[in-house]
Amino acid sequence: MSLIERLTDEFARLPGIGRKTALRLTYHLLKVTSQEAHRLADAIVAASENVRPCETCGTFTEVSPCRICTNERRDRSIVCVVEEGPDVGAIEATGEYRGLYHVLGGRLSPLDGVGPAELNVNSLLDRVSGESPVREVVLATNPSVEGEATAMYLHRLLAPLGVRVTRIARGLPVGGDLEYADGVTIAEALQYRRDL
Amino acid sequence: MSLIERLTDEFARLPGIGRKTALRLTYHLLKVTSQEAHRLADAIVAASENVRPCETCGTFTEVSPCRICTNERRDRSIVCVVEEGPDVGAIEATGEYRGLYHVLGGRLSPLDGVGPAELNVNSLLDRVSGESPVREVVLATNPSVEGEATAMYLHRLLAPLGVRVTRIARGLPVGGDLEYADGVTIAEALQYRRDL
Repeated sequence: MSLIERLTDEFARLPGIGRKTALRLTYHLLKVTSQEAHRLADAIVAASENVRPCETCGTFTEVSPCRICTNERRDRSIVCVVEEGPDVGAIEATGEYRGLYHVLGGRLSPLDGVGPAELNVNSLLDRVSGESPVREVVLATNPSVEGEATAMYLHRLLAPLGVRVTRIARGLPVGGDLEYADGVTIAEALQYRRDL
Repeated sequence: MSLIERLTDEFARLPGIGRKTALRLTYHLLKVTSQEAHRLADAIVAASENVRPCETCGTFTEVSPCRICTNERRDRSIVCVVEEGPDVGAIEATGEYRGLYHVLGGRLSPLDGVGPAELNVNSLLDRVSGESPVREVVLATNPSVEGEATAMYLHRLLAPLGVRVTRIARGLPVGGDLEYADGVTIAEALQYRRDL
């Protein structure tokens, strides 16, 4: 196998990258300077070797426990549960949340062979029933079928521990259009309505 | 800057990869085994260091001159001119062409600052007017505005050298539908019609 085929094969193994895109990426790297190609290769190796899940919350981090878990200025009484690492970044980017996180590493999906044992569920229960007092768990799994099922499952496990369990709101996204929204979303937007 | 941001930035520099896709690729590589991440990094370095343009035709290759240029069983009297390296692969995959290639490395595009000096035009003229007899140059640049302009430009340069200059046919693609084809394509399909 030629080096061009080998690199194309490796790119094509990445999620969402088909063979034609992989070939385009390969030829791009052949055209750029060797330094630029090395920068990408070095960044891959550095991240792969030094980034690990945080021992407390499961977020990918270079230092464990991560900077959010060790930040004394965060509200340690509230834990936001998300499916994947990038969700933490999305919520952090809003600047609206000052609590801690817990990354499940996926969502319940029996068809894909993902059950509770494949997710960081036990570590979540340990955190909630541990010595540091957690008052509220915000379930921020995605508003998909699997995300909802995961939230329902966690709610059943968490409720007996005497912690407040909340779910992020569903409704019309900003810039959305009532006329084109699906019925379920509109119904949820009405249910989640609040006083002004 | 964290290693996650650094790798995401590097992915986002690749063509057609936006920030969200770059973030997804980064998290994918954090989730897979270290060996798998290293395989990609090694493939990038190996290709970047060992693959170079062929000194004769400009195709990316590990040995220069490339395997096509040195293949004694290819028809050395016909040269097919393409824009980019992957085009060679697309034509080779058909198994219908036994001549040589010449890779321009792009197409004329004044708006992007690509003039004749940025393309491998002089080396093409050298090959055609050199000692080994080239009977025909097939212009296989893309059927886009820039590709056509490039073909016209090369035709003007090549015609005085007494070589036969041809252009790949335009017409309806296999599986295409007359009803939905654009007028220009149908008109060209009629012009390029041939006897059965």
